[in-house]
Amino acid sequence: MLDRIRIVMIETSHPGNIGAAARAMKTMGLSDLRLVSPKEFPCAEATARASGAAEILENAQVCGSVDEALADAELVIGTSARQRRIPWPSVTARQLAEKVAGEDSVKVAILFGREDRGLTNEELQRCHLHVSIPANSEYGVLNVASAVQLIAYELRMAIVGDEIERPDARSRRHTMVLPELVWDEPPASSDDVERLLEHLQRVSIRAGFLNPDNPAQVVTRLRRLFMRARPDKMEVSILRGVLSGVEKTFDKADD
Amino acid sequence: MLDRIRIVMIETSHPGNIGAAARAMKTMGLSDLRLVSPKEFPCAEATARASGAAEILENAQVCGSVDEALADAELVIGTSARQRRIPWPSVTARQLAEKVAGEDSVKVAILFGREDRGLTNEELQRCHLHVSIPANSEYGVLNVASAVQLIAYELRMAIVGDEIERPDARSRRHTMVLPELVWDEPPASSDDVERLLEHLQRVSIRAGFLNPDNPAQVVTRLRRLFMRARPDKMEVSILRGVLSGVEKTFDKADD
Repeated sequence: MLDRIRIVMIETSHPGNIGAAARAMKTMGLSDLRLVSPKEFPCAEATARASGAAEILENAQVCGSVDEALADAELVIGTSARQRRIPWPSVTARQLAEKVAGEDSVKVAILFGREDRGLTNEELQRCHLHVSIPANSEYGVLNVASAVQLIAYELRMAIVGDEIERPDARSRRHTMVLPELVWDEPPASSDDVERLLEHLQRVSIRAGFLNPDNPAQVVTRLRRLFMRARPDKMEVSILRGVLSGVEKTFDKADD
Repeated sequence: MLDRIRIVMIETSHPGNIGAAARAMKTMGLSDLRLVSPKEFPCAEATARASGAAEILENAQVCGSVDEALADAELVIGTSARQRRIPWPSVTARQLAEKVAGEDSVKVAILFGREDRGLTNEELQRCHLHVSIPANSEYGVLNVASAVQLIAYELRMAIVGDEIERPDARSRRHTMVLPELVWDEPPASSDDVERLLEHLQRVSIRAGFLNPDNPAQVVTRLRRLFMRARPDKMEVSILRGVLSGVEKTFDKADD
């Protein structure tokens, strides 16, 4: 489903960006990379940055022209950070992904321009559509490999979906849907909850319940419970009060 | 709206990744970066990769511990490529963004781990939620700066939108949207939770914390906490164990 999508990088200056783009592609399940007149390729820096995506670099086709890179593509997309003088049909990354997902057998090529000045007007006019990534109006220029990552991610989300593999946690599984809450007390801070958990552990040890040398999963399970509950400040303070009371009673007995 | 979101990078090895993350943040309108024990920082390579986001690097706070980096955060998120043995509440990047957008005023910290092995189990257990980026099951390991880019993008899309300003619905304070959970233990029954609450009350009274003649709101607040958390059977049994241990210690003192 994703093998009909090609990434075309034009006159990339920094070989590290080619490697990073290859890795970005592989993490999202893309594999067809074409490089138009890269400044330096192959290159050790590209390979290093590709990490586990070496075979995408090895199979990358180096092309002498945009025409060669676009051969047999049926829908050509140009990435562009801004609208040009003659406005072109233009979509956001998410809209592009929906469109590509909807056109289920069309061969797509997405063009990424030079690090310093993007695609030329001539290249942009070779495109059916321009795509932009919604960004900070004061500084919206993504690194080219980050742009590849983002667009590949949106394509994957639209075409494959967001299935995350969840390896089994023992045998039984129980789905709990927790409600939306509107709250009266401010949430406890991360620090408040840490102090509560430490306090609960101290008391559990003094009560002979928790073996400090072998806490096993008990501590993790208590932590998970309280992290999930996201106690508010008042709740933490009540529980700390109970624990302090228990400790004082222990102390009195020790006297 | 985005200034309540903090990015925390832990023990980053490659300074280039810190720079790239700063750039990724700025393009999406984030600015609060904390670095826990970076291997090399400041560093010319970080500055080069930050490109137009130099001031994010300049203002980045270097911290000696995760605690310091998390100070005053109210919702702590850990990025994780895989599910751990004790499953933790877990969402996709897009679900996280919706959640954070829904929690209008909550201070959020998002933790990114080491390039080679991510976050430690201990760090992951400091988190309320884990977030994963849907990715290729054969190779799903994004570069850390790419992960920052993607999550920052989803946050921007959910909070700012793609240009269009969102209407109110954001004005309530302390709204918490809790995720759907896939769980390893069966949920505690209503009865289990009642017995736990009674047990907790008995111990609170014996510890001198709770006045049985005037429990005020304390009992209600404890009840609300545990009802909301929807403990599983194992968690109830651990807490009952702690309480029984406390009672036995009290009894011994009384003898």
